Amino acid sequence: MMQKPSIPKGTRDFGQKEMAARNYIFDTVRSVFKSFGYAQIETPAMENLSTLLGKYGEEGDKLLYRILNSGDAFAGVDFDKPLAGQVCEKGLRYDLTVPFARFVVQHQGEISFPFKRFQIQPVWRADRPQKGRYREFYQCDVDAIGSGSLLCELELVQIVEQVFRKLDLRVCMKINNRKVLTGLSEICGFPDKVVDITVAIDKLDKIGLEAVEAEMLQKGLTREAVEILRPVLLLEGDFASKVAVMRGLMASSPVGMQGLDELEELFALIADAGVTMPCEMDLSLARGLNYYTGAIFEVKALDFQIGSICGGGRYDNLTGIFGLPNMSGVGVSFGADRIYDVLTGLDKFPRALSSGADVLFANMGREELKYVLPVASALRAAGLSVEIYPEASKLKKQFDYATRKGIGFLSICGESEAASGTVQMKNLATGEQQSFGRGDTSALLAWLKG
Amino acid sequence: MMQKPSIPKGTRDFGQKEMAARNYIFDTVRSVFKSFGYAQIETPAMENLSTLLGKYGEEGDKLLYRILNSGDAFAGVDFDKPLAGQVCEKGLRYDLTVPFARFVVQHQGEISFPFKRFQIQPVWRADRPQKGRYREFYQCDVDAIGSGSLLCELELVQIVEQVFRKLDLRVCMKINNRKVLTGLSEICGFPDKVVDITVAIDKLDKIGLEAVEAEMLQKGLTREAVEILRPVLLLEGDFASKVAVMRGLMASSPVGMQGLDELEELFALIADAGVTMPCEMDLSLARGLNYYTGAIFEVKALDFQIGSICGGGRYDNLTGIFGLPNMSGVGVSFGADRIYDVLTGLDKFPRALSSGADVLFANMGREELKYVLPVASALRAAGLSVEIYPEASKLKKQFDYATRKGIGFLSICGESEAASGTVQMKNLATGEQQSFGRGDTSALLAWLKG
Repeated sequence: MMQKPSIPKGTRDFGQKEMAARNYIFDTVRSVFKSFGYAQIETPAMENLSTLLGKYGEEGDKLLYRILNSGDAFAGVDFDKPLAGQVCEKGLRYDLTVPFARFVVQHQGEISFPFKRFQIQPVWRADRPQKGRYREFYQCDVDAIGSGSLLCELELVQIVEQVFRKLDLRVCMKINNRKVLTGLSEICGFPDKVVDITVAIDKLDKIGLEAVEAEMLQKGLTREAVEILRPVLLLEGDFASKVAVMRGLMASSPVGMQGLDELEELFALIADAGVTMPCEMDLSLARGLNYYTGAIFEVKALDFQIGSICGGGRYDNLTGIFGLPNMSGVGVSFGADRIYDVLTGLDKFPRALSSGADVLFANMGREELKYVLPVASALRAAGLSVEIYPEASKLKKQFDYATRKGIGFLSICGESEAASGTVQMKNLATGEQQSFGRGDTSALLAWLKG
Repeated sequence: MMQKPSIPKGTRDFGQKEMAARNYIFDTVRSVFKSFGYAQIETPAMENLSTLLGKYGEEGDKLLYRILNSGDAFAGVDFDKPLAGQVCEKGLRYDLTVPFARFVVQHQGEISFPFKRFQIQPVWRADRPQKGRYREFYQCDVDAIGSGSLLCELELVQIVEQVFRKLDLRVCMKINNRKVLTGLSEICGFPDKVVDITVAIDKLDKIGLEAVEAEMLQKGLTREAVEILRPVLLLEGDFASKVAVMRGLMASSPVGMQGLDELEELFALIADAGVTMPCEMDLSLARGLNYYTGAIFEVKALDFQIGSICGGGRYDNLTGIFGLPNMSGVGVSFGADRIYDVLTGLDKFPRALSSGADVLFANMGREELKYVLPVASALRAAGLSVEIYPEASKLKKQFDYATRKGIGFLSICGESEAASGTVQMKNLATGEQQSFGRGDTSALLAWLKG
């Protein structure tokens, strides 16, 4: 007996139900992206390793899937030197951001800037598989590049609001600004400790003021520096009062003040646009700190315990790595797998999503088949999904097929229906049954669509 | 200056226009597949090499993209043995058929048979790139497995008809049956020369009767065998008269007669179902001969010179390679790239496909932005795609952006519109211009959709 085949660890097959649910998420984000004028692009699964290497840090380089050169990859190889670099020139896409930057630089002559693009494609990472972490997963990225306007940030906030409104999920958006974090590190005299400071602030809710300050000291900040930062840890009140305190603290840091200006303007735009999704300033938000230069975003589900389900920010020099400087961009990425888990956990997928065809015509034999074929075609032409059971099996078997597949209606047209020129139709959910003239598609359709 | 980045040979980026055109094709096939009750599945890009190797012949094995094992792939390798097999356990999907067979076997416990599935995903082949041949390309496969009923064949014919009707392409479907080809080889006494005989018959139109017979002789058939086959080369008339001649010839070959029975029944079903797409029996159709066991299909565009744009057939033992015998299936695959070329060549893509957003609001400054933001949101909520230019640039620049991106309407709301509470809108195609009350979204919408 042959061994049952399997798929590589960390990868997944998607059957009918999962596909319907996943397509529901992808279709939703796609329709929202389009309503804001973003254009879809796709890039190849394989990129040259020269495009990918060095873009994700040392750890990231190790997680790249490398593709063995075709032909005899080992011909002419120097076995005294590292082999991987000699036998692989291509790798699988690790995210959608670097391919996007490569795309913009490669096609800059054809692109109208500001360029608003979205991309929904799988990425691959040779990560250790674990619950909720896969080696192949989809990303849904939306970015605007070529404009520094805060209107781009606003649009992303609006997009997030619309996506989760359509998915019927309550979420909260946290917003920070990298320039403010830089400002904090400047005013306390430790401009090189941005990350340590932010990471410590992030623990405030969990470990309390004293422990946060102890951590800062332990990371090398002086007592004086920690005292300068204390008001940040004691921030209270609404957005305006928080910003007022920060402005007082930050007066000596031009970049910090600019960050506060940006935050204020973005929140003003959010109000002007009538966004009702809760948005809050969160100075501990440090996501992708080495990367973002302005706004930083993160979205959390309010009714389900899981990490962030969407996030992003502004980067001022994404395409610089490929020789095109001064291209400011801002984007967010929706985490399809986590959103899937939240929708599943909260039972928020629409009911009809994964059901089978609308109608199954039972197969009663060759003559009856001839009788129902045109009826099936007429219903399909009207937009219904219609199956005819392929074999004239026992009715029990055909009925079971319909139930197992969640088909809504079953039609059994035998000799008597053919003789009387009628079509019989049964609602499998309610048991209700009705007969229609074979040519009276409109009455049949009206009943089916109920 | 850094070198401009590029992508691997034989791969492609798809920009907004190509994506819109490709999605039009994918959406069309997907909607037709669904209307016949086929369920979408997806499988991982990476499969275990044990799943892929040996399934595509020796040549196919060479064209598989292999993925270097993650971690230190070369640790513990025996350099005296072939290396590729030791350092790669995974490969990229070469087609959708083998992964489908693997899927069916792996998930047989969860599947309701007959299983009708479709799959639209990219595949990768390390082929030599040339015009129209890529190393990454999409396949659109639709298969029914677990039933030997000819109704499955009929459904595929109907699906092909509907897809090309929706795409507004005139096509012709050629149909053959592998059993008839086997019968021909049997009646002339050369059962091992099925391929040679079929290939020779295929050249009849091009090189004529005598040259075809010469080729058969050259391939080792006897003069007597060639004379037995001559009536096949002289076949004339409609389907019924051709079949009558074939029945006379084929009487001594049970398998050949069964093939003729199947062809006759399929053509009867095609007539009963009211298919109007031209379908013709073509005994020279030999597509995938090592693979198919019953019906063989091929679709040609009538108004454009290109190879087949869709093809497939019945296979009786697809899942046998993975230890699940006696699963008969039948399927066709649509060639998205060729269909794209035909639609482009015949200028058949819908006009509005690749246009940009419906409306661009010019950016006239911060105050005016506040004024138009709610209008933009209202139009989006009504299903339109709406952009606001991110920066308060010169109007000329904003206007050029709208034209380059093919945006339909431009709204310039400055101080005077804000003062009078109106929204001004211009049709960029006709130059027509109109003014609406800011709150009167329904009048504005009616005009925009008008």
